[in-house]
Amino acid sequence: MFFASDNWAGAHAAINDRLSRESTRFAAAYGNSDLDKAVEARFNEIFEREVSVYFVSTGTAANSLSLASIARIGGLVLAHSEAHVIEDECGAPDFLSGMRMTPVAGDNGKIDPAALKAAIARYPQDAVHHGRSAAVTITQATETGTIYSLDEIDAISKIAKENGLPLHMDGARFGNALVSLGCSPAEMTWKRGVDVLSFGGTKNGCWCAEAIVFFNPEMAKEFAFIRKRAAQLFSKTRFISAQFEAYLQDGLWLKLAGHANAMADRLRAGIGASNSARLAWSTTSNEVFAILNKAAAASAEEQGAKFYDWLVPLKLDGMVRSDERLIRLVTSFATTEEDVDQFLSICASV
Amino acid sequence: MFFASDNWAGAHAAINDRLSRESTRFAAAYGNSDLDKAVEARFNEIFEREVSVYFVSTGTAANSLSLASIARIGGLVLAHSEAHVIEDECGAPDFLSGMRMTPVAGDNGKIDPAALKAAIARYPQDAVHHGRSAAVTITQATETGTIYSLDEIDAISKIAKENGLPLHMDGARFGNALVSLGCSPAEMTWKRGVDVLSFGGTKNGCWCAEAIVFFNPEMAKEFAFIRKRAAQLFSKTRFISAQFEAYLQDGLWLKLAGHANAMADRLRAGIGASNSARLAWSTTSNEVFAILNKAAAASAEEQGAKFYDWLVPLKLDGMVRSDERLIRLVTSFATTEEDVDQFLSICASV
Amino acid sequence: MFFASDNWAGAHAAINDRLSRESTRFAAAYGNSDLDKAVEARFNEIFEREVSVYFVSTGTAANSLSLASIARIGGLVLAHSEAHVIEDECGAPDFLSGMRMTPVAGDNGKIDPAALKAAIARYPQDAVHHGRSAAVTITQATETGTIYSLDEIDAISKIAKENGLPLHMDGARFGNALVSLGCSPAEMTWKRGVDVLSFGGTKNGCWCAEAIVFFNPEMAKEFAFIRKRAAQLFSKTRFISAQFEAYLQDGLWLKLAGHANAMADRLRAGIGASNSARLAWSTTSNEVFAILNKAAAASAEEQGAKFYDWLVPLKLDGMVRSDERLIRLVTSFATTEEDVDQFLSICASV
Amino acid sequence: MFFASDNWAGAHAAINDRLSRESTRFAAAYGNSDLDKAVEARFNEIFEREVSVYFVSTGTAANSLSLASIARIGGLVLAHSEAHVIEDECGAPDFLSGMRMTPVAGDNGKIDPAALKAAIARYPQDAVHHGRSAAVTITQATETGTIYSLDEIDAISKIAKENGLPLHMDGARFGNALVSLGCSPAEMTWKRGVDVLSFGGTKNGCWCAEAIVFFNPEMAKEFAFIRKRAAQLFSKTRFISAQFEAYLQDGLWLKLAGHANAMADRLRAGIGASNSARLAWSTTSNEVFAILNKAAAASAEEQGAKFYDWLVPLKLDGMVRSDERLIRLVTSFATTEEDVDQFLSICASV
Repeated sequence: MFFASDNWAGAHAAINDRLSRESTRFAAAYGNSDLDKAVEARFNEIFEREVSVYFVSTGTAANSLSLASIARIGGLVLAHSEAHVIEDECGAPDFLSGMRMTPVAGDNGKIDPAALKAAIARYPQDAVHHGRSAAVTITQATETGTIYSLDEIDAISKIAKENGLPLHMDGARFGNALVSLGCSPAEMTWKRGVDVLSFGGTKNGCWCAEAIVFFNPEMAKEFAFIRKRAAQLFSKTRFISAQFEAYLQDGLWLKLAGHANAMADRLRAGIGASNSARLAWSTTSNEVFAILNKAAAASAEEQGAKFYDWLVPLKLDGMVRSDERLIRLVTSFATTEEDVDQFLSICASV
Repeated sequence: MFFASDNWAGAHAAINDRLSRESTRFAAAYGNSDLDKAVEARFNEIFEREVSVYFVSTGTAANSLSLASIARIGGLVLAHSEAHVIEDECGAPDFLSGMRMTPVAGDNGKIDPAALKAAIARYPQDAVHHGRSAAVTITQATETGTIYSLDEIDAISKIAKENGLPLHMDGARFGNALVSLGCSPAEMTWKRGVDVLSFGGTKNGCWCAEAIVFFNPEMAKEFAFIRKRAAQLFSKTRFISAQFEAYLQDGLWLKLAGHANAMADRLRAGIGASNSARLAWSTTSNEVFAILNKAAAASAEEQGAKFYDWLVPLKLDGMVRSDERLIRLVTSFATTEEDVDQFLSICASV
Repeated sequence: MFFASDNWAGAHAAINDRLSRESTRFAAAYGNSDLDKAVEARFNEIFEREVSVYFVSTGTAANSLSLASIARIGGLVLAHSEAHVIEDECGAPDFLSGMRMTPVAGDNGKIDPAALKAAIARYPQDAVHHGRSAAVTITQATETGTIYSLDEIDAISKIAKENGLPLHMDGARFGNALVSLGCSPAEMTWKRGVDVLSFGGTKNGCWCAEAIVFFNPEMAKEFAFIRKRAAQLFSKTRFISAQFEAYLQDGLWLKLAGHANAMADRLRAGIGASNSARLAWSTTSNEVFAILNKAAAASAEEQGAKFYDWLVPLKLDGMVRSDERLIRLVTSFATTEEDVDQFLSICASV
Repeated sequence: MFFASDNWAGAHAAINDRLSRESTRFAAAYGNSDLDKAVEARFNEIFEREVSVYFVSTGTAANSLSLASIARIGGLVLAHSEAHVIEDECGAPDFLSGMRMTPVAGDNGKIDPAALKAAIARYPQDAVHHGRSAAVTITQATETGTIYSLDEIDAISKIAKENGLPLHMDGARFGNALVSLGCSPAEMTWKRGVDVLSFGGTKNGCWCAEAIVFFNPEMAKEFAFIRKRAAQLFSKTRFISAQFEAYLQDGLWLKLAGHANAMADRLRAGIGASNSARLAWSTTSNEVFAILNKAAAASAEEQGAKFYDWLVPLKLDGMVRSDERLIRLVTSFATTEEDVDQFLSICASV
């Protein structure tokens, strides 16, 4: 019952096998091997256009260096107030991009278009004192388990574009969002105006595979230097490529994300029907936020369930009673039906 | 005949096997798993004292964040003029530590103690205008394939200590140096006054395993923040730990380094006896610098040999004739006797 | 009728005279002259204790380098959401301190103690992911013309101290606040737990005189390097000292601030009694926020009055009607009764 | 006998008078006053073309932000090994521009063209590992009192241009060099290919007047943000403008520099003819480097002469005997013939 995070899972067997095969040969370092080139080309196929792809070590690096690549002096990055870049990356995006992450309000973990407009109006392009809006970033799926619809991405994108601002998407759980929406990678990104994407593979079956995808290769022209200066250029880059090759082959990544989402659906259904637990809010990704009575939560923990209390300062308006806990449950490619059912049965039994 | 760099090799089978085993289970993220703790303890044994160990993604990150952990405002890091931190890391150490890498002269890739003293005298602790010496860093083995003797480390360390400066060691090829000197890890580091070590595993049989080892845990007390802010905290850290566990088990790392060094010895012996090639200077690590006549070098390349011309602006005093090339040959755990002998026979045949 | 800002005023005659006298002699550069030392000692008297004083070029520099001196990696600076460091310094505090300015809510331009507690709880000292609270900063007088009472400073300071956080005060309008409260400099600062102060002279009669005052000299021990590295060490520092000497002599600074406040009182009284204007909210410093009908505002502008519309995104709850403007009026040492009365009479006549 | 530095002098009476006049009026802040605009236009006349001019607080700021305006990620700034940006600015240029100052050799304080070519070859534009050359900076007059001839500037400029590198000139003593060469400001700068100039007024009669002059206004398009983010935007900017207005009026600045140079000539002539002192090397600016016997130097100091020993690690090849001192003597607009003669007579009498 490992629901603490999808990064508690290991690596999928197919990805591990591909890594093993890679280990036995020599090849050029620093991303110059045949495999690296092949995987870069594979990304073009996945996104149905020419893209520029760069690997980095962590999701935080992907976000931070994406933003560094579109940085402006005195720039402000407009992000949802609960976004990972604001709440969970220890200031790395600010440090590595030289810009301040600036909170924008919005319900359900999504930027509110009106609030975004107001922020851009407050920080216009000539605002030497206030600072200037320099980029918009959205998280798909969001930190609260919700997913921007294509229309919602459009709405944000339109505002960004009207104001000349590049749009970044934090796709640490890109696969989960994609499967949930049932659209293509292109439809969820550049066809909606996304310029730069943090494309995460680690949470969905790789052990370390994070890519930055530039939909406008021009935007990437300084990136090799940005990455190296940030100490993020792997010498044996092809071991990242190997993971991505297996990940993207025959739709494995979508199957893994689909499984994770299905396990979350199973949790949602069970919790929705439970007497000792209820859903805190509606989610459609592999994250479930539940309110459990404390006895049920404690019982689950005693029997080995792993999960975190959710402490992000949401305005919960008395949603959680004093004998309850708000917890986050995250499923992954490795979550089993048995784990889910065991958890639900504990909830049901308290 | 892959002599371009030791980072062109893959990963050793034992390390790969350990990674595979790790892939099938769940465990706590961000370095909090049982395995992470076990490997941290293993480092205490290796170094015969309590150390603080942190994993990062690259050797450049290890150097840069080591220096960040001992950074002072307006500080200068005194490094050999050909050191990796000066010549090969795209300014990452400066960017991530906020200090300037400052060249100090010395023969054979090693800092000259007298030049170090002069630099420290030039940049004393109260030098608000000049900037102040803040750290000394040495590379073991050096970028030119040489190795500081224990006495030479002592000489540098003594100067650093007398001036209150921490001493960092870039150990990207730590194992190769250690095996060459035939001493213990402790003897080559903290017993000589090294305070912080970049401990590299990637070049010696891992695919991605770089650690920073603090011999004074007090010095590491801000490091968790330094690493996270630099986007270098892996979520699935235990896959680094798994590599190090196998690497350090039963002396595997020393065997691998010993093999690489032996292959370099074989190259050195063959080249020393050759008519069409000669050693550019004496080395004792897994790096060999050779001067080949151009025909021999071209012939080797035609037959698949991989190596780089060495372009670091050494004062070579006419050492290389116009019909010759100065090349670097690097061996690794995966280099075979057959590869070495094939290369030598090509040289002999031209 | 120059009410745009107090930094539109020139320099007071006494300060100008002192500068003139200084111009005719030689003296040691970089803050090492007799005058520099004398003025440093004068600050000890003003604050009734030993302090460490450093001059910088701008108020933004004073804030940014104050924060740099107490910076922690991954640190968050808790500031009122409308604070100058957040809204008006183009990211300089973040850039120069390496920390993110983080908004905390509060009415009347002042940090709400409960919101401060919540922020500190959200960002505790071990929060490697979220980032950690590293400092609290308050502005006295605030950007909205209000002034923290001594008890209000105590309340903020107590929370900061209980959590081990240093407290910075942005005193760009320190004199105005001090005169308004009628207390001593010591009572408004270190006796309330303020650790570092941006002490502004520019807005109150100097042309360029900004100091950072450390109440704990230990906290300043790296500051000489912080300032020089930020390119803020004047060679002819004594011309700043000369300004401060005249400024602090015979209470000149308090007289100038008192005059500015009195002119603001006169504005407040007149506007309060006006039919075409009203006070937007209550202030007690040299800043007045008024809501004018557009005709009155336009008429004033036509007759030469200078002022800015106030656009900070306050929650004004429909306070300003569509035929009105919310404007800021700032008085200074150089504001005359005639200017005030002319402005009021324009308002009265529309 | 104040020969310690030209920044020990005060301010010229005409400049002081202009400042006094400015103090009595109101005007727009942050560089938006009529006077600011007039002085900006004056720079166009001085340089015989449209330029973009920005004021900052110190020479270090001028250099650092000049370089920030042309910064590239992973960029190296090629500077003479004894340049102020390397030896005297506490790392500010590196910190504020994000680039590493990189030493290039050369006799007489001037970059050697061959060494510059070698450095650019070592750090080409695609050198992701080594870092890339990003700018060349020269100091005019140099830190060792010498002056680049127009041909010498041409030689450096040609190399920079051929390699696509912008050329910066540190003109902390611009006036002294200009007068010495007897050419126009245009001839010494943009007509020779200089792109950005640190134009210093402080050492030559102002108390604080440093400007950055962009000869290509396009290059300055981000500068307003660069300056503000570095906390270098004065609110009462017009007090800098006032100094520059007086400084540039009727050629005052050239007269002041001419006087300083003449006083240095007088020193040079006297020392050249002395038995107890000799010139260390030939200079043509307002800096004189002399080797005095220790008795003469001590006697001069006893009688109030101020000067510094010169400790920059020049290769002096035994030039200075153990009973001698190498000292630097700097003259200024305020140096008198009496001071010079008194110093020379002390030397003569020992």
